[in-house]
Amino acid sequence: MKYLFLIFFINFLPQYAGKSLSRDGNYPKTFEDIKKEIAGYSSIAKAIIDLAVHGKAQNRSYERLAVFADTIGPRLSGSKNLDAAIKYMFSALQEDRLENVHLEPVKVPHWERGEEFAVMLEPRNHSIAILGLGSSIATPPEGFVSAEPQQISFLTLLISICALTEDSTGCISCLLASGDRVKMGGDDYPGPLIHFLLEAIPLRSIWHKLIGITAEVLVVTSFDELHRRAQEAKGKIVVYNQPFITYSETVQYRSRGAVEAAKVGAVASLIRSIASFSIHSPHTGWQNYQPGVPQIPTACISVEDAEMMSRMSLQGTKVVVYLKMGAKTYPDSSSFNTVAEIVGSKYPEQIVLVSGHLDSWDVGQGAMDDGGGAFISWEALSLVKDLGLRPKRTLRLVLWTGEEQGGIGAEQYYQLHKKNISNFDVVMESDEGTFRPMGLAFTGTDEARDIVKEIMTLLLPINITDIYDTADGTDIDYWMRDGVPGASLRDDISKYFWFHHSHGDTMTVQDPNQMNLCAAVWTVVSYVIADMKEMLPR
Amino acid sequence: MKYLFLIFFINFLPQYAGKSLSRDGNYPKTFEDIKKEIAGYSSIAKAIIDLAVHGKAQNRSYERLAVFADTIGPRLSGSKNLDAAIKYMFSALQEDRLENVHLEPVKVPHWERGEEFAVMLEPRNHSIAILGLGSSIATPPEGFVSAEPQQISFLTLLISICALTEDSTGCISCLLASGDRVKMGGDDYPGPLIHFLLEAIPLRSIWHKLIGITAEVLVVTSFDELHRRAQEAKGKIVVYNQPFITYSETVQYRSRGAVEAAKVGAVASLIRSIASFSIHSPHTGWQNYQPGVPQIPTACISVEDAEMMSRMSLQGTKVVVYLKMGAKTYPDSSSFNTVAEIVGSKYPEQIVLVSGHLDSWDVGQGAMDDGGGAFISWEALSLVKDLGLRPKRTLRLVLWTGEEQGGIGAEQYYQLHKKNISNFDVVMESDEGTFRPMGLAFTGTDEARDIVKEIMTLLLPINITDIYDTADGTDIDYWMRDGVPGASLRDDISKYFWFHHSHGDTMTVQDPNQMNLCAAVWTVVSYVIADMKEMLPR
Repeated sequence: MKYLFLIFFINFLPQYAGKSLSRDGNYPKTFEDIKKEIAGYSSIAKAIIDLAVHGKAQNRSYERLAVFADTIGPRLSGSKNLDAAIKYMFSALQEDRLENVHLEPVKVPHWERGEEFAVMLEPRNHSIAILGLGSSIATPPEGFVSAEPQQISFLTLLISICALTEDSTGCISCLLASGDRVKMGGDDYPGPLIHFLLEAIPLRSIWHKLIGITAEVLVVTSFDELHRRAQEAKGKIVVYNQPFITYSETVQYRSRGAVEAAKVGAVASLIRSIASFSIHSPHTGWQNYQPGVPQIPTACISVEDAEMMSRMSLQGTKVVVYLKMGAKTYPDSSSFNTVAEIVGSKYPEQIVLVSGHLDSWDVGQGAMDDGGGAFISWEALSLVKDLGLRPKRTLRLVLWTGEEQGGIGAEQYYQLHKKNISNFDVVMESDEGTFRPMGLAFTGTDEARDIVKEIMTLLLPINITDIYDTADGTDIDYWMRDGVPGASLRDDISKYFWFHHSHGDTMTVQDPNQMNLCAAVWTVVSYVIADMKEMLPR
Repeated sequence: MKYLFLIFFINFLPQYAGKSLSRDGNYPKTFEDIKKEIAGYSSIAKAIIDLAVHGKAQNRSYERLAVFADTIGPRLSGSKNLDAAIKYMFSALQEDRLENVHLEPVKVPHWERGEEFAVMLEPRNHSIAILGLGSSIATPPEGFVSAEPQQISFLTLLISICALTEDSTGCISCLLASGDRVKMGGDDYPGPLIHFLLEAIPLRSIWHKLIGITAEVLVVTSFDELHRRAQEAKGKIVVYNQPFITYSETVQYRSRGAVEAAKVGAVASLIRSIASFSIHSPHTGWQNYQPGVPQIPTACISVEDAEMMSRMSLQGTKVVVYLKMGAKTYPDSSSFNTVAEIVGSKYPEQIVLVSGHLDSWDVGQGAMDDGGGAFISWEALSLVKDLGLRPKRTLRLVLWTGEEQGGIGAEQYYQLHKKNISNFDVVMESDEGTFRPMGLAFTGTDEARDIVKEIMTLLLPINITDIYDTADGTDIDYWMRDGVPGASLRDDISKYFWFHHSHGDTMTVQDPNQMNLCAAVWTVVSYVIADMKEMLPR
């Protein structure tokens, strides 16, 4: 804290107390000089805006994103789709004649949801829409029944047998030993049928999907309520019906709902989606187990189903849910951050980094999270190139991998490049939508902020000049924590959490006009910072 | 037309030309008299409003609906759920001590969607959310493949065999004749396995769900485009990506999309849901085949998937979809309109009818369509009873059955009761949501409208006094066409078609405060009309 203040003081002094020699031997500018320098970019800024919003590049980022998202689909870390996306972008950036297009290897988590579904069995049959949470385990292959299912069918029994034999052939041998015919569910079936069924692996894998957990639910609206009612949780599926307050506040139910439920003996947890509005749409996301706490399967359900089970419980109605999840975690997978540049004319080693993440969740198209951010970042380089501009510093595009698992690609990038931290001028990420832009969120010293505020005046032609506290972006946090100035796009996120991590994150939510404006903001800011005489103070 | 004018003229004259003897021997009122009479209801109106909005009945219609919708779930005509709903309401209305609680038999269509799903196979695998349309046939049990699937698995072949043997055992015999082992998909499998699999009926029913239509799609945005491109449609699945204009205009794509596609040789049609907003949510609804036109399977898909396939086609990308629908139409089923009354004190034979429909689609909870309308109609009778009021005329609640198939219950009710049409004072239905009420839509003569407009002034305490053209309600149309005045609730439907006929039609969209206000409007209007000295003029 004291140290930070010192840095601030050192940076602060020259601006107001007079001039001293700067790194390149010139006297640093007064703020009036800087204002004049920035004002000098007004015709370039107008050219960028014209090209992005009204000119030949109009709708380009949207159209590129549409073809990409339609071709590739969702891009979860570890998936073939993400590999395909990286290859696609590698080619596309080369075809766009950007410089130093390359891939930087990263190890990312590889989790697959597999088949999953949930059914409310009591008080009535109702199919529950779920999305398993990233890193969740599967329901146990041998199943778990703590509430008596309404009926055991022949099929259910077959399934149970098939499931058991994956780990133990004892049980089925038992059954077969009883003779040519096997009694199950009141009927008897030919022994050879069972025998052959067990040989048919592809069929067995289908039946497996029907093995899961059948248990009564305990509905709570908060961790507090869960702790108060801890003694009721044993052997149950805990359903969290927490209200949506803000994403950052409410997301803790997704992150640690399973851990808290497991601590009090629950066999699974179902969490109301972290969504500010729902049309029966579950939202996925990452969750974290804790060492020493049993791992239980966990998924998000729709707001509607959470509310319904909550109402039923309040009425004293017993609710029984059947849950099947086939999720599996594989060894970490090879992936890449995708990089392209416009190399700086004067200080090529100095970097203005613009970015979005290329990976997404495995539902929808990842068009909003973070297709939009990735593609306006690409657009920034394209627009600069199309205008024949070359800034003094290097404008570097990074399309992160493994963001959704906690900024995995960005962390490895940081470890690899932090030795050059003094050359990082600003790190920018757009990862909160590319809806109607409102301005720029910035993290940095007051002096740097003043400069960026002045740069934003160049966006007056499209009336997007506001600057906000503070920049936000999982992938740029590593740098900002070490004092590198950071910026993120601020846009109208009123509907962002309607679609976030859900099947609804598709091109339908993207708007070409809004993306044009976002690209204009992103490009003007990054180009001007990259081209100014001095790096931003830190 | 001439006749209607005459009726109008006869009704019109007395009001302005003086007084003549009315049916009961008194001089009819001038409009000033009527205004005074209506003003006399202001304390009763206030009492109704107080009870519904602020008093003991506050939130009652919402709470009753929640328990009902949670207990019963969706209620499609012909389903056990609808039977359960009718029984539930019969008991509930009796327990509420309403009068003449009874059921009137009706035959309703019985269609079941069965299992259904769709997958885009090319250009990439993508699960398409669908909802089959009411009255649609299934995909053919023998399947249909006009585009080569990406791969034929052992499983797919097994399925095909199992499917075929339902209608023909020839094919499988052929295969078995080839010896002890059967070659399929490059591998060979033991003949007895196939034999036993075929004996296991429950398993066969699972495999069946994988037999369907595999075909390239033709995406069009209008019937015009379909007709222009008619020669491209043969053997394809037609995908309609029509924009949402208004429900009444756009719904024609749902109603006759299959017929128009079949006329040009399509094998199925997938229709962009009739929705003004979507979070990857398909919306179902009734559709109509035409005599002489081949019947093809038809379903709605999400706005997002329709737009995506449209974009892909515009890019020249071949799109192949696999569609499976297990829909089935059964013989008409026995059902009932559910009726309860508060019998009139002076003219018990004269009827003010308040209504909503009890049936719904088979997804979500039917909480909005038309749980809300049905339950504020019930609430109207409850509020009148709770206040110890008994109007001069009978206040009759009808909860229609079979509305979603085209007002089936209402038509049979009309046929049964139309002989008493002169005793029907007004027919009211709420079937367009019970969101924030804006007023009353009315169909009737100008004279009747003036009276109802005056009645609406009684709702000034809650500031809902507007009257609109014209009343809307499938179930009351039969009466309005014959000149009976009709009224429907007008409310804020800005989100109605976000949820309509989708999994999103749940209690989550209902708001207790809004329902209180709706119930107040509904009760004041129906009670006052039922209690005024004269029936509404027609």
